[in-house]
Amino acid sequence: MGAVTGVSPLAPLSFPDLPEVPGARIATASAGIRYPGRTDVMLMLFDPGTTVGGVFTRSKCPSATVDWCRAALAAGTARALLVNSGNANAFTGMRGKATVTASAGMVAEAVGCRPEDVFLASTGVIGEPLDASKFAPVIGPAAASATGTAWHEAARAIMTTDTYPKVATREVAFGGQKVVINGIAKGAGMIAPDMATMLSFVVTDAPIAAPLLTDMLRREAVDSFNAITVDGDTSTSDTLLLFATGKAGGELLADPADRRVRAFRRELADLLRDLAHQVVRDGEGARKFVAINVTGATSKKSARRIGMSIANSPLVKTAIAGEDANWGRIVAAVGKAGEPADRDRLAIYFGSLRVAVNGERDFDYSEEAASEYMRNQAITITVDLGIGRGRDTVWTCDLTKEYVAINGDYRS
Amino acid sequence: MGAVTGVSPLAPLSFPDLPEVPGARIATASAGIRYPGRTDVMLMLFDPGTTVGGVFTRSKCPSATVDWCRAALAAGTARALLVNSGNANAFTGMRGKATVTASAGMVAEAVGCRPEDVFLASTGVIGEPLDASKFAPVIGPAAASATGTAWHEAARAIMTTDTYPKVATREVAFGGQKVVINGIAKGAGMIAPDMATMLSFVVTDAPIAAPLLTDMLRREAVDSFNAITVDGDTSTSDTLLLFATGKAGGELLADPADRRVRAFRRELADLLRDLAHQVVRDGEGARKFVAINVTGATSKKSARRIGMSIANSPLVKTAIAGEDANWGRIVAAVGKAGEPADRDRLAIYFGSLRVAVNGERDFDYSEEAASEYMRNQAITITVDLGIGRGRDTVWTCDLTKEYVAINGDYRS
Repeated sequence: MGAVTGVSPLAPLSFPDLPEVPGARIATASAGIRYPGRTDVMLMLFDPGTTVGGVFTRSKCPSATVDWCRAALAAGTARALLVNSGNANAFTGMRGKATVTASAGMVAEAVGCRPEDVFLASTGVIGEPLDASKFAPVIGPAAASATGTAWHEAARAIMTTDTYPKVATREVAFGGQKVVINGIAKGAGMIAPDMATMLSFVVTDAPIAAPLLTDMLRREAVDSFNAITVDGDTSTSDTLLLFATGKAGGELLADPADRRVRAFRRELADLLRDLAHQVVRDGEGARKFVAINVTGATSKKSARRIGMSIANSPLVKTAIAGEDANWGRIVAAVGKAGEPADRDRLAIYFGSLRVAVNGERDFDYSEEAASEYMRNQAITITVDLGIGRGRDTVWTCDLTKEYVAINGDYRS
Repeated sequence: MGAVTGVSPLAPLSFPDLPEVPGARIATASAGIRYPGRTDVMLMLFDPGTTVGGVFTRSKCPSATVDWCRAALAAGTARALLVNSGNANAFTGMRGKATVTASAGMVAEAVGCRPEDVFLASTGVIGEPLDASKFAPVIGPAAASATGTAWHEAARAIMTTDTYPKVATREVAFGGQKVVINGIAKGAGMIAPDMATMLSFVVTDAPIAAPLLTDMLRREAVDSFNAITVDGDTSTSDTLLLFATGKAGGELLADPADRRVRAFRRELADLLRDLAHQVVRDGEGARKFVAINVTGATSKKSARRIGMSIANSPLVKTAIAGEDANWGRIVAAVGKAGEPADRDRLAIYFGSLRVAVNGERDFDYSEEAASEYMRNQAITITVDLGIGRGRDTVWTCDLTKEYVAINGDYRS
């Protein structure tokens, strides 16, 4: 953590106040897992009747906590969420499994629920054993002191290399009433297409059945967390959970076509994208926030692959860091994506400036205007392939010397 | 080029003298394409009867010169090779094609051959028009002054961000006689699995038929140029050509099972690996040379994908730069490769030190010994998946702040 200096220049200028979500309470604690002088445990409690959905990392080497959550999700009910930072409990073998079982047991006892209703997430260093006994002294007091208002504290307790806590809130007109959706997230490195942020938790008081929660997350992650990348690396721990306390009242909704569900899903999508952008804006060492639009591809999937090829190209990302309108490297990244493309139909834009058209430099473009544009903190790059109607947008950040510094001595 | 300071610390300690290859002559020249005060054009001339094989970038947006070479290769004969540095003539549209045609025409006229017997390669900035008239004053004098000895000068003329010229030579017992294989290469960034170096040219006096030359290159590139990566980026210009003058005499060989061909192929493989390693050792900003062995995979192909996932992980590469034995990031890279793996059977070694076994930290391992090992300039990482017999080795370098500096202001 020594290399992290101050808050990302791309951080939001202000953070919203998060209202209470009826049926959910939060406490944070300092268990001394790794970071001195800060909180590193977050306990969230849910009233009986709370449903839960989730999506997880596609890593073939998931963490012990991801294994636990996947199994726990089968029942679709939740009473508690325990998250720690400082240690990912990943690649920890039988010890990792024992820690997970013991932690869930402690929370279940403090809350008075079944261990399978306890969800767990861990983030931090991989491969170091996580000692469950660290949780023992803090879980009881945390459960006893939880309140409905500690959302910012929750977002802060789950940070690792993050430079600011990530929070978002939305209100949904839900039939004749209003429901709330609150979300928190953490993530700054190891951010890649498949479940981008390491951790994000969303809570609502809407009454929605568990399978529909997972279904909505799966669909809405596509254009939010799965559409961002910092370094192309996929975490072993990526976890996105959506808890619905149902305290807004009414029947439990399970029909995706229901008008209330559709309204909810729109706001959920917006909130997830907001959190995903906050993660990119806290990309390790990031100084530029970059949106990459790909249009005219043969399909959305093809556009996504090309967008990610550009967004993960170290040469493109270092050029952006250097404020260099180096569209040649974008061509190279399009070429290596392996997707249908016709070199001689490509057009490339920085913002609204067309720099290349029909497979060559746009001879009307001004190098000075392009260079001027690259000095912006938020950059939009558009690549039009000119061969189809598929389109997609992904978001990334630049690759700076600070990224190398942060990751060259993360453990020290 | 301002950020490039001195020769890579990983450069070979000495460079071999290259003997003449009967039937091949070389000249270099300064055409002032981009770099002041250095050579930027290399012309190689071949006697009639020279055969040629080649493999090229898999980029969907190849350079105009790659298009040209692919077409010229159909006849399988070569009389000249013209290479320039400073401008890649890539993404230059109709102008790029015109430049290629004009350049080949100029060389054909100077040499007295058909334009289709002239091979071309260009390396440098993408997307800037390359003016063929730059070549006009230098081709005639170069053709007139070519000698059999200018191999080091040739390797130097084709450099871009390279910090040293890359040369290699081998001698083959070829039936009752000896034949020579000389090779040169350039490349330092935009180095990726599919045709790693941007440019490499190999010349022999052995009599080998053109289709067999291409076949041998295709097979031997797999574990040489295609097994290295600096930054996962694939160039638009990657070109590997093998010219055989046949001046050693004897029948033209076309049978891959011929004993002489097999002996030749072994030495060719060794020379290509040598050149490929020289490219990695000149990786932009590199301070460490890293071999990654993957064993116990379900197949060689699967082992290759996992090896490349590790070799291209910015988190692994920055950890190596920081001399941090951070095997957790290797686990994460194995996990994201999408290949069969069993977390609880993984073992990881730094050199001969086993740091993880059976899916968790090896509790016998010494953190100090591992840290000590990471201070070496050449690092070997071995990942044993424990689920099959597939194995592979790939080579890469670390990711340093200098890489970012070099690529953040390449064009300025």
